[in-house]
Amino acid sequence: MPDLRKDPLSGRWVVFSTERRRRPTDFRVGLTPQAAESPFTHGREHLTPPEVFAIRPNGGPHNSPDWQVRVVPNRYPALRVEGELTRRAEGIYDAMSGIGAHEVVAETHIPEIPFHELPPEQIVRVLEALRSRWEDLRRDGRLKHLVAFKNHGALAGATLRHPHSQIVATPFVPPAAAAKLDAAREHFARTDRSLFQDILDTERRTAERLICQNHDFAAFCPYASRAPFEIAIYPSFQSHDFGRCQTHDFWQLSEILREALARLHASLDDPPFNMLLISAPLQEDPLRWPTLHQDFRWHIEILPRLSVFAGFEMATGCFINTVTPEEAARHLRQVQLPR
Amino acid sequence: MPDLRKDPLSGRWVVFSTERRRRPTDFRVGLTPQAAESPFTHGREHLTPPEVFAIRPNGGPHNSPDWQVRVVPNRYPALRVEGELTRRAEGIYDAMSGIGAHEVVAETHIPEIPFHELPPEQIVRVLEALRSRWEDLRRDGRLKHLVAFKNHGALAGATLRHPHSQIVATPFVPPAAAAKLDAAREHFARTDRSLFQDILDTERRTAERLICQNHDFAAFCPYASRAPFEIAIYPSFQSHDFGRCQTHDFWQLSEILREALARLHASLDDPPFNMLLISAPLQEDPLRWPTLHQDFRWHIEILPRLSVFAGFEMATGCFINTVTPEEAARHLRQVQLPR
Repeated sequence: MPDLRKDPLSGRWVVFSTERRRRPTDFRVGLTPQAAESPFTHGREHLTPPEVFAIRPNGGPHNSPDWQVRVVPNRYPALRVEGELTRRAEGIYDAMSGIGAHEVVAETHIPEIPFHELPPEQIVRVLEALRSRWEDLRRDGRLKHLVAFKNHGALAGATLRHPHSQIVATPFVPPAAAAKLDAAREHFARTDRSLFQDILDTERRTAERLICQNHDFAAFCPYASRAPFEIAIYPSFQSHDFGRCQTHDFWQLSEILREALARLHASLDDPPFNMLLISAPLQEDPLRWPTLHQDFRWHIEILPRLSVFAGFEMATGCFINTVTPEEAARHLRQVQLPR
Repeated sequence: MPDLRKDPLSGRWVVFSTERRRRPTDFRVGLTPQAAESPFTHGREHLTPPEVFAIRPNGGPHNSPDWQVRVVPNRYPALRVEGELTRRAEGIYDAMSGIGAHEVVAETHIPEIPFHELPPEQIVRVLEALRSRWEDLRRDGRLKHLVAFKNHGALAGATLRHPHSQIVATPFVPPAAAAKLDAAREHFARTDRSLFQDILDTERRTAERLICQNHDFAAFCPYASRAPFEIAIYPSFQSHDFGRCQTHDFWQLSEILREALARLHASLDDPPFNMLLISAPLQEDPLRWPTLHQDFRWHIEILPRLSVFAGFEMATGCFINTVTPEEAARHLRQVQLPR
């Protein structure tokens, strides 16, 4: 069973999941199986653990082919739903059992298509699948937070070429999400305004970092982008919890996602990237984040991995970026899209 | 001139240093020039900016050959000493001028030798060079913190094969260092003990994560290691500021560094790694860290880069590790060293 340990100096939790490798000195870097080996094409459903969600427009039994989107537990899960959530002291250290969830979303049965070339209705289905997992996992009160992410390309940590994303539920709110929730709460306490709305107003008005927008969403390069061509997507309506979105929101989001990713793909010749979906905690914590409904918004971050985060980033938690978001956004706006 | 921008949601600073590349869409990943191109062999001193420190046992003018260790400003600095430290609001955002220092330490004139194969006296010279830069840069009151780090291997962000490390001084205490200083202060306030000493006592007593030790230092795999085979080196005497170390401390440290890195090299066949030296702020801040002299210790972290930090790590600030520190330490202790 996986184990969670807390570092006493930094406060961060580390998941120890030794089932994910064979010997301690075996490491896979940059392994990306070819399409022929993909476990996510139709007819290979037996290669994965049994599904937890699928969209089959023509019906059909669980784990049968002809699905449009399919969610399965990760075969090598970092965290597991089975077992008891126990917390313990190990001498001066803190640990807990590795309770959580780790699932894989097969975004299509087509093994080699870039995500942004999926038809809009297929991206809506992927978003609906995510929302469904959000609502299902929320029922387990031990699970406090959920992130969804997509690793594209070996330098971004992908080990499989087939378009897919992952969901990880944790029994705590992770530090990166907590820091944002705290910042939004403090801004609201001071100004009575949402920090997300303030950022969005600035980006829409100045437009120098804006990439594309529609009525409900805007994509822009953040003012303090960690890496060249980083992209953020915020909803322009107040919505703290991705799991509470409506399907009609997803059509607008699908449009923005497709355009932002197509522009990134065209600008940098299919760069590796991580795409992150950050939302409010699964279980509300009104003592810690009392104004969450007004001050926080779920949002998406797209982080191209064009250079390595090295000693400086590891030692400081700060970043060195060689491209300003104004330059990156200009490039992303102006690039010629195919067709 | 480089620029520093603060992300309003995470609070982290990002250095924008556009001189480090040519066009916004040019990126170098994994470029490691061969020895023949190294700017740090004797006789190529004109290929670098003028030195700020060097050890020349036989004397000789600045920037002449026959040095043993040489420190030069980075040709493509992330931050610069020249200019004025100005802070400004950009609408809702915070920024400041990119004042700081970014230097390169040539650890030897031999282009292809692994760091741990340098003779102990040469590693002592490298540590003396670092200490000298610590004390010199401290005189600039604008510089609040200094980190030294070594990127080894392309996957750890090295762009040069020649053994070297880097120094970056920042006009603020970076979040990763501040978090550790806060944790040490809180532990001391609660217990009247140093967190570093508590960790060291635990690691020396249980010994299951211990790699090697001598009178003044211990190397161990941290309880909540972020990555497989992570190593920490702590002094066992109270010493918060690396710049205040004595040369006799460096002989003991040199011994531990050589052994820990030799064992890492032998265990994983010369893995890429980042080595980080974290110390107290350059300028003391008694309001923020009043008990620093008793509760904090400078220390070294060695972080092998065997897998990519991917979407989960980026979204959460937590880590997934497939090797426990107990397994890694056992391997590091038992591995056969050459000769």
